[in-house]
Amino acid sequence: MLEQYLRRHRARFLTELQQLVRFPSVSAQPKHTGDIRACCDWVANHFRQIGLRVIVHKTAGHPIVEASTPRLPGLPAVLVYGHYDVQPPEPFDLWKTPPFGAVVRAGKIHGRGASDNKGQFFAHVKAVEALLATSQPLPVNLTFLIEGEEEIGSEALMKFCKQHARRLRAEYIIISDTGMYAKDLPTFTYATRGLTALEVRLDGPGRDLHSGVFGGSVANPVMQLARLLATCTDAKGRVTIPGFYAAVQPLADWERRAWRKLPVNDKRYAAALGAPTVTGETGYTTLERRWARPTFEINGITGGYQGPGSKTIVPAWASAKITCRLVPNQSPEKVRAQVIRHLRRHCPKTVRLTIEPGHCAPAFLTPPTGRGAKAALVALEKAFGQPPVCVREGGTLPILDVFRRHLRGEILLVGLGLGDDNWHSPNEKMELNNFYRGIAMSAELLQRLG
Amino acid sequence: MLEQYLRRHRARFLTELQQLVRFPSVSAQPKHTGDIRACCDWVANHFRQIGLRVIVHKTAGHPIVEASTPRLPGLPAVLVYGHYDVQPPEPFDLWKTPPFGAVVRAGKIHGRGASDNKGQFFAHVKAVEALLATSQPLPVNLTFLIEGEEEIGSEALMKFCKQHARRLRAEYIIISDTGMYAKDLPTFTYATRGLTALEVRLDGPGRDLHSGVFGGSVANPVMQLARLLATCTDAKGRVTIPGFYAAVQPLADWERRAWRKLPVNDKRYAAALGAPTVTGETGYTTLERRWARPTFEINGITGGYQGPGSKTIVPAWASAKITCRLVPNQSPEKVRAQVIRHLRRHCPKTVRLTIEPGHCAPAFLTPPTGRGAKAALVALEKAFGQPPVCVREGGTLPILDVFRRHLRGEILLVGLGLGDDNWHSPNEKMELNNFYRGIAMSAELLQRLG
Repeated sequence: MLEQYLRRHRARFLTELQQLVRFPSVSAQPKHTGDIRACCDWVANHFRQIGLRVIVHKTAGHPIVEASTPRLPGLPAVLVYGHYDVQPPEPFDLWKTPPFGAVVRAGKIHGRGASDNKGQFFAHVKAVEALLATSQPLPVNLTFLIEGEEEIGSEALMKFCKQHARRLRAEYIIISDTGMYAKDLPTFTYATRGLTALEVRLDGPGRDLHSGVFGGSVANPVMQLARLLATCTDAKGRVTIPGFYAAVQPLADWERRAWRKLPVNDKRYAAALGAPTVTGETGYTTLERRWARPTFEINGITGGYQGPGSKTIVPAWASAKITCRLVPNQSPEKVRAQVIRHLRRHCPKTVRLTIEPGHCAPAFLTPPTGRGAKAALVALEKAFGQPPVCVREGGTLPILDVFRRHLRGEILLVGLGLGDDNWHSPNEKMELNNFYRGIAMSAELLQRLG
Repeated sequence: MLEQYLRRHRARFLTELQQLVRFPSVSAQPKHTGDIRACCDWVANHFRQIGLRVIVHKTAGHPIVEASTPRLPGLPAVLVYGHYDVQPPEPFDLWKTPPFGAVVRAGKIHGRGASDNKGQFFAHVKAVEALLATSQPLPVNLTFLIEGEEEIGSEALMKFCKQHARRLRAEYIIISDTGMYAKDLPTFTYATRGLTALEVRLDGPGRDLHSGVFGGSVANPVMQLARLLATCTDAKGRVTIPGFYAAVQPLADWERRAWRKLPVNDKRYAAALGAPTVTGETGYTTLERRWARPTFEINGITGGYQGPGSKTIVPAWASAKITCRLVPNQSPEKVRAQVIRHLRRHCPKTVRLTIEPGHCAPAFLTPPTGRGAKAALVALEKAFGQPPVCVREGGTLPILDVFRRHLRGEILLVGLGLGDDNWHSPNEKMELNNFYRGIAMSAELLQRLG
């Protein structure tokens, strides 16, 4: 009966998803504030139409939609998280279809936000609609939290979760905002990396100096910055900052074994990224380096003259943006302090060092052995027709730590995106197959969590 | 009689210099092509008025003014070089008087080009006028070469010198386009540093990558560039590129002795530059580092994200602009090859290395013991009323090598500029004292060279 409903309403589900994708709900651009609001209203109304109780929470930024099924005593609380805001679509000229056209072609829906995150969270909405419409018992007290600021830091939601922690507390938190390891390969993500950011700046002379008249007699801040950054890693790709690896939780045997079974082709991987070769910390595979090892990454560097031709100066200053990806058990604040201490120790007195600490987010890891994970694995297998893989994710989802601390609950990352969905890039798309299978997976999962 | 003439015509000389400074003869900016031409015409006419034979040579760029006294057999040939073009005046808002106003105030003439180089070469013009007008014997066959492209590389003049080498050959080449060591301290410059330039670029992935998803598994080009550049120097301020110092001509004892007598204050020097401290190659003084030691200078570096906040990427590429200042006996081409070889050897295979060689100019040195230098030292002492100092210059004058190779002759650098004349900066000025004393010095020097 559920299956029938899903089959019968496929076309409408897609039409509705197209409507949703057509909102240019770009959270970063003030000119789209009206579109954000319109998109939020559409989502709220949609929840009402399928029978949920809706509250739209105003925030200092963009509103949060909270939608709940009727509370029934004794049922486990489940929270489904998603976001209706999207990345900016620029650069426009690289799009092959209009970024907010929601064009459907060859089994894909094309548009900014189609996969990140509208198509993913909407699959759960459609599952709930189907369950309610077919009078299937919904054996959980379900709440959707759909925010409008994920692409700009989720500030309002973090505050909201702290303020309403008790009411929002859930036994399971379901999130489809990650990727599948490969096409048709259902994927359960049980860990993400953390992050710590800082910016370092070296000041030398008070202004750019003539490198002929003065060169050789004062420190060159660019050279000193290069020398300083070079002290942070070694030729084996290891970070040489004292204590950096001290707290790192080593990979479990079951993980290494499981990952070795995943399809891997380093050559094809490097070619797809346009890199000469894979490389990294000695003693680890590419997947281990991406998912389970911390990094020291320079995101940008600047100093002196950067235009065409040459300008013979000793630059006045140089700066670099740094982020470290962190793995479970590393404290972002501690690692940041270690980095700062190292930089201070190795910076010569011939330049002035300034360090601006940036944001922090811890890594997340829950082995896929909990009750929720087991249910998710079964639901994924049923929906996709083959056994799911369990993976980590190299990126960072700062909201997870907020959920973990304030809402508790087992976090279930059941991503429906693909590596080539072009999140944050031109020509974003989502596979319709993943959308439909996602609906089935969600319905199955909600029933099993009851 | 000469002195009388100079005294009597001081006011007119200044009025004429003001006329010359008022031309916005900015060689770098196409909108000023008409002004360049007008300035050139003014200079040519001025030479005609004082009795010289003038040829204005058209070039692919801006014209060259050649002006000669009547040839007399048996007299030594003397060439006076200068340039009528000027640096761009921008940024306008920092000027306290109009950049082309030629405002005279408190013993200074203010304006772009006042000191670099109009006031300096015009002093020689006025000296020749005075000598001819007072029927002093002009005991040399004198030629002025005043170009209009010094600030943009002197390309036309270099070609011109090669083409007309035989005709232009001179026993002495007089140039006032350098600075005095201190106010009221007449200065003879007997050496300049050379230069070799190159740009290095490292390419990693084909595009900026998400540092969470991919970080740790491919090389970060910014980090690799930092590591590569760090291999080029050591903590003692020495360049570690093999062979870099091999050909360096060591400082002569007489130079070290002479320089030790010059007024030096490292603290005040660092403070004036806004640098935390002086520093550089161990075992050398500040003057030695600036004038007589080669350098490896990074003029600019760029890579990745450089805007506000953070962007968590592995940048696709990074690049740096490098110039080495060179000292006598170092071949710019050889040093450049050494640098390139070193970079190639130390660059890991995980990134693609591209090196773009830039321009080259050798250092120049003629000990101040020649007949011309001796005459210049006496002329400087007579005009300024105290014994001159002999110095080197850290900057590079590429035209010197062209003169040396094609025109031969002893090069006499008798600069009239001061360190605070603001060459290439807003509020350029020239001391009128240096202008007037320069005229007297030039008249004396020309008579002594006969």
